[in-house]
Amino acid sequence: MKSKLFEERNLSMLMDFYELTMANGYFEKGMDDTIVYFDMFYRKNPDAGGFSIVAGLEQVIEYVKNLKFSEEDISYLRSRKIFSEDFLKYLKNFKFTGDIYAIPEGTPVFPYEPLLTVRAKAIEAQLLETMILLTINHQSLIATKANRIVRAAKGRAVMEFGARRAQGFDAAIYGARAAYIGGVVGTATTLADEIFGVPALGTMAHSWIQMFECEYEAFKAYAENYPDDCTLLIDTYNVINSGISNAIKVAKKVLEPMGKRLKGVRLDSGDIAYLSNRCREILDEAGLKDCKIVASNSLDEYIITDLLDQGAKVNSFGVGERLITAKSEPVFGGVYKLAAIEENGKIIPKIKISENAEKVTNPGFKKVWRLFDKNTNKAIADVITLANEVIDDTKPYVIFDEIHTWKKKTVTKFFAHNLQVPIFKNGECVYDVPTLDEIKLYSKNQIDNLWNEVKRFTNPHQYYVDLSEELWKCKQKMINQFSFK
Amino acid sequence: MKSKLFEERNLSMLMDFYELTMANGYFEKGMDDTIVYFDMFYRKNPDAGGFSIVAGLEQVIEYVKNLKFSEEDISYLRSRKIFSEDFLKYLKNFKFTGDIYAIPEGTPVFPYEPLLTVRAKAIEAQLLETMILLTINHQSLIATKANRIVRAAKGRAVMEFGARRAQGFDAAIYGARAAYIGGVVGTATTLADEIFGVPALGTMAHSWIQMFECEYEAFKAYAENYPDDCTLLIDTYNVINSGISNAIKVAKKVLEPMGKRLKGVRLDSGDIAYLSNRCREILDEAGLKDCKIVASNSLDEYIITDLLDQGAKVNSFGVGERLITAKSEPVFGGVYKLAAIEENGKIIPKIKISENAEKVTNPGFKKVWRLFDKNTNKAIADVITLANEVIDDTKPYVIFDEIHTWKKKTVTKFFAHNLQVPIFKNGECVYDVPTLDEIKLYSKNQIDNLWNEVKRFTNPHQYYVDLSEELWKCKQKMINQFSFK
Repeated sequence: MKSKLFEERNLSMLMDFYELTMANGYFEKGMDDTIVYFDMFYRKNPDAGGFSIVAGLEQVIEYVKNLKFSEEDISYLRSRKIFSEDFLKYLKNFKFTGDIYAIPEGTPVFPYEPLLTVRAKAIEAQLLETMILLTINHQSLIATKANRIVRAAKGRAVMEFGARRAQGFDAAIYGARAAYIGGVVGTATTLADEIFGVPALGTMAHSWIQMFECEYEAFKAYAENYPDDCTLLIDTYNVINSGISNAIKVAKKVLEPMGKRLKGVRLDSGDIAYLSNRCREILDEAGLKDCKIVASNSLDEYIITDLLDQGAKVNSFGVGERLITAKSEPVFGGVYKLAAIEENGKIIPKIKISENAEKVTNPGFKKVWRLFDKNTNKAIADVITLANEVIDDTKPYVIFDEIHTWKKKTVTKFFAHNLQVPIFKNGECVYDVPTLDEIKLYSKNQIDNLWNEVKRFTNPHQYYVDLSEELWKCKQKMINQFSFK
Repeated sequence: MKSKLFEERNLSMLMDFYELTMANGYFEKGMDDTIVYFDMFYRKNPDAGGFSIVAGLEQVIEYVKNLKFSEEDISYLRSRKIFSEDFLKYLKNFKFTGDIYAIPEGTPVFPYEPLLTVRAKAIEAQLLETMILLTINHQSLIATKANRIVRAAKGRAVMEFGARRAQGFDAAIYGARAAYIGGVVGTATTLADEIFGVPALGTMAHSWIQMFECEYEAFKAYAENYPDDCTLLIDTYNVINSGISNAIKVAKKVLEPMGKRLKGVRLDSGDIAYLSNRCREILDEAGLKDCKIVASNSLDEYIITDLLDQGAKVNSFGVGERLITAKSEPVFGGVYKLAAIEENGKIIPKIKISENAEKVTNPGFKKVWRLFDKNTNKAIADVITLANEVIDDTKPYVIFDEIHTWKKKTVTKFFAHNLQVPIFKNGECVYDVPTLDEIKLYSKNQIDNLWNEVKRFTNPHQYYVDLSEELWKCKQKMINQFSFK
């Protein structure tokens, strides 16, 4: 794999300018040592889905480890003429010294759960905000979208083909990484293979066909070059009248004499449902039952579902722009909110009130627990508690809805799993970053633990994410204090 | 500005894997020296707009200049076991030797116009595909979206605030660059200022307010730190009952004694139309007529239009996720298609036929002309011609619709401007890259040359992009050849 040289660009200054004005302000007011707790969480699953998949933690870890301000950065800030020299000196020697807890990559998650919690000095926690949000929002968006598409394909392979329509270079590279976590089998982006080991795949463009005298010559040349992995793009001129018969001719005249088989044909335009059925018949009649049909062309989970409902005979899907941009809903709206501060070693919860009810935050230093059924291993509910609480899974546990508190349920025969794990302690990374394949497998297993009702696309069951009684009381008390203002 | 060190990561392998399998194939078939012409163009303006703004050329130039394959890249490719050693040796010594023509950044452009044309050896042209598309698609998408939002704001300043919701690091950095070309006055992304000189702006988050005993103390601390540039976020608790009065108190008690004025207040939630009017009244009554009102919270061109229609008293807008992801239509669908090859020094046009009529390409090596009215300077129409044609603007010129050929128009008193300019000749960059501020100003002037009918959001006039008679005949002839197959 590619060396870390690739990532030696200095991204420290990829932060909202207000992080710096606030940091300078805390410094000037002597508040820089105040210990604070920030939660990153989101409010809504994209595409009205039942869950999301969190991703991007590895890149957050790299960023936090490497966060330092170069002479050049300091000079730039000095040129803005609003930062004190003491603050600039502080930045020059900056090193993150706090704690970070996070839910591992690939975990299915739900709105309002703290995906990542930072406990650090005010300045340090503030300076991390933009990159934590940017990184986790982006990769969670793509992992979630990819998983929807993979589930729609019902066991057929999905390949990520979107680099040319990605929103910038990193969107192609890290997008391929996130899509792989979400379940795609490979990518068209070579660099994602070289860096992350996401298998890079691909055969030919229409231009290859056009470069030759005729379609048959183009197919023949390709088959001669790549007899072991020959998938032919058959829609350059006309699929039925030209492409499929030329492909079969190559299978018979070029590949079979070499003892090789035609691996596949690809459809990139036209009516995929109709064409795939016709091609399947023609291929089968020609004795090419093992030749796969690959479809591409602006696909997503909705179109794939529709194609399969119509009986399209497609073995695998290449998905481009609608995956790599999460086109139907291209924003994962994670936020980073102050949850508590420490005063004389005591944790003081903080809340953000809003006219918009869904924008009121959960106060305090918290934990997220997932309760699994002991018999089925299925996830029953998640519970957010204060950090000093422990859910005793040897006894029945009562969960209740935060708003409609009369909606209660007693959970029995369960085991409780604490979702967040320590990532940094006192500035040192204490987390053993899993390999990408480990994350992918873990993710698949965790999603298997969700009920199908949570996974369906239309009106999924709203999975329970409840507050512990203690946290609920703390929140109500704080809301009421503000209401009386 | 930041040194080029930032961009020293090697992006050569950011290409679709099929570019490499095709390149190896051309090499093996002895077709690597064939001279080809590829056009990059797009088919549809995002958001059903009347035009787009092309951007990203500077980054394409950097990529082409730096395109080389490292030992590591070669080792990776060798490990795939499908590339010949001769081809890998060729890649090791790779240098682009061809020509590139392009429409300068910031130019308003229309569907089917070649935004960029590559004339090069087959392999070289193919290896550039992914990055040309990725770079120009992304930045054109954001420049176009930003310009729509800026036009909706009708002269009010628009700031780009989207980094935290961007699709990856580059989407934040180059997105800020493209948004600046599109007309925003600044960005929240500090690194975009450091690298490109896009002014970075920003004041405080809700967390700043929450860190203090009360809102007034938070405002006071900020004003003391930044008396010259003090914009206060007034919706942490309650805009009318708390935020606005605390802001006024700070203006009077903290800033005025220092001889300073409160620069602005920011609304980030709630009913902006109502709240901005109430705040305006309260500020005016308090003698703070010069205090600006800034609004943010999931804005875009539609919401801004709506707010202004309702008489919202907003002086400037901070626009985040809906700009930086072009949320309403997050894909700029540029494609890169073979247009011609050379045989014995003669240009042989190539065409891509498709079941989908809009996917049929314009064949040949071409030029794009813009015809301007001599009196008004307004753009009348664009004409795509073969490259050896010259439009003589001393004589009347007849344009006609490609499909409905009876729709004709004789253009008189015009001057014709060739939109593409040479960027690379024989592998050397011959283009003097303008500064970002030059691009921004040029773009504004070029957009001023468009009729308002082309610029409106709802059912814009479809600007004429016609083919010359010679190109039209060439295309028809080629289409008919295929129809007879």
